Amino acid sequence: MRMRNKPWAMSFLRSMPHTLVEDPKSWASQWKKKLGCSLLHVEIGSGKGDYWSSMAHMHPEHGWVAVEKDRNVAATSLKKHFDNLLPTMALIVQDAKDIKEWFAQGEIDVLHLNFSDPWPKKGHSKRRLSHSEFLKEYWRLLTDEGEIVMKTDNAGLFEYSCVQLSHFGFILADMSVNFRASDHPEDAITEYEQRFMELNQPIYRAVWRKNR
Amino acid sequence: MRMRNKPWAMSFLRSMPHTLVEDPKSWASQWKKKLGCSLLHVEIGSGKGDYWSSMAHMHPEHGWVAVEKDRNVAATSLKKHFDNLLPTMALIVQDAKDIKEWFAQGEIDVLHLNFSDPWPKKGHSKRRLSHSEFLKEYWRLLTDEGEIVMKTDNAGLFEYSCVQLSHFGFILADMSVNFRASDHPEDAITEYEQRFMELNQPIYRAVWRKNR
Repeated sequence: MRMRNKPWAMSFLRSMPHTLVEDPKSWASQWKKKLGCSLLHVEIGSGKGDYWSSMAHMHPEHGWVAVEKDRNVAATSLKKHFDNLLPTMALIVQDAKDIKEWFAQGEIDVLHLNFSDPWPKKGHSKRRLSHSEFLKEYWRLLTDEGEIVMKTDNAGLFEYSCVQLSHFGFILADMSVNFRASDHPEDAITEYEQRFMELNQPIYRAVWRKNR
Repeated sequence: MRMRNKPWAMSFLRSMPHTLVEDPKSWASQWKKKLGCSLLHVEIGSGKGDYWSSMAHMHPEHGWVAVEKDRNVAATSLKKHFDNLLPTMALIVQDAKDIKEWFAQGEIDVLHLNFSDPWPKKGHSKRRLSHSEFLKEYWRLLTDEGEIVMKTDNAGLFEYSCVQLSHFGFILADMSVNFRASDHPEDAITEYEQRFMELNQPIYRAVWRKNR
């Protein structure tokens, strides 16, 4: 569901140059230095930013880059987490299809895909964030020990992603077909996730690595 | 649950030498000739034989070897499917831990693991049919295009198996976290499976290949 247009979104985002990164290309290969971290996490499709902010507070020694293409959603996320922004948190308000230009080869340690749009129609499969066109870029941008962590309520997207990543050469390191059936204090619950948990619907999660 | 001892089991099994294979070792490398087929399926843990028999009738051009270590269960399966046995069906009443001796390298086309014992305790993981000790043998016994097909109601076993097979080098070809949510007339429903479907519990299924 598209969020209503917020005329204040862009000016609000721009009022926070320490968090908003308007020209991510210019930081390629410099992200860890910029955020003062040795480990870089990137979340594509960060939505209202709950996961991004919570995880950044759980691991303030890591860098956390959120990517959200919808400026209204991105502005809402900054507003919501305004009082909790850390210097290790950055936000890119652009379409992840250009991700290859923003980071250098081997720069990302962990890539997070939370409740991505499933694009259920076959003709739209190229838009899924686990389509091979994206995987090709992720593979290049991840460190040798790099990981992709995915959570979703959508069975179809989960199945598709598992098959795609396996075909691409990623190794499945961990998997859960009902992640919230047990406690996972180490992993932040997104707003969207909370709703599915309340409906008692399973959350699927998988972690893949480039190497064993 | 262990089946009650049936004093007639062994003599009944032995009365059917066309189906019961008492010395599977002697058929290594000869199974396709023996069963008159070009494609060989092996099901480990065939239980009451519903899947074995149904699939053999769906594909009478293929060979179907069932492995069931419990002679009482195996005898029950032969009794149940007595009127429907085909010359392409064979039954081995032994423990699958010796499978490496029964088939030659690259002899099996499809290996089926249906509702295998999950052995949930960590200390028992070696007994799981997807433990790496088994995977090593399966890899050797499967053809280059060989597949492992697994169905289970047990989330823990499914998750464990997916991780193990991926680590071993198998490529995930297909996956479903709720297999019976859609129609699959191509795949026989086991007795055990039917019960879970009636309880509206998800059936997990995955297909792995040795190569892309």
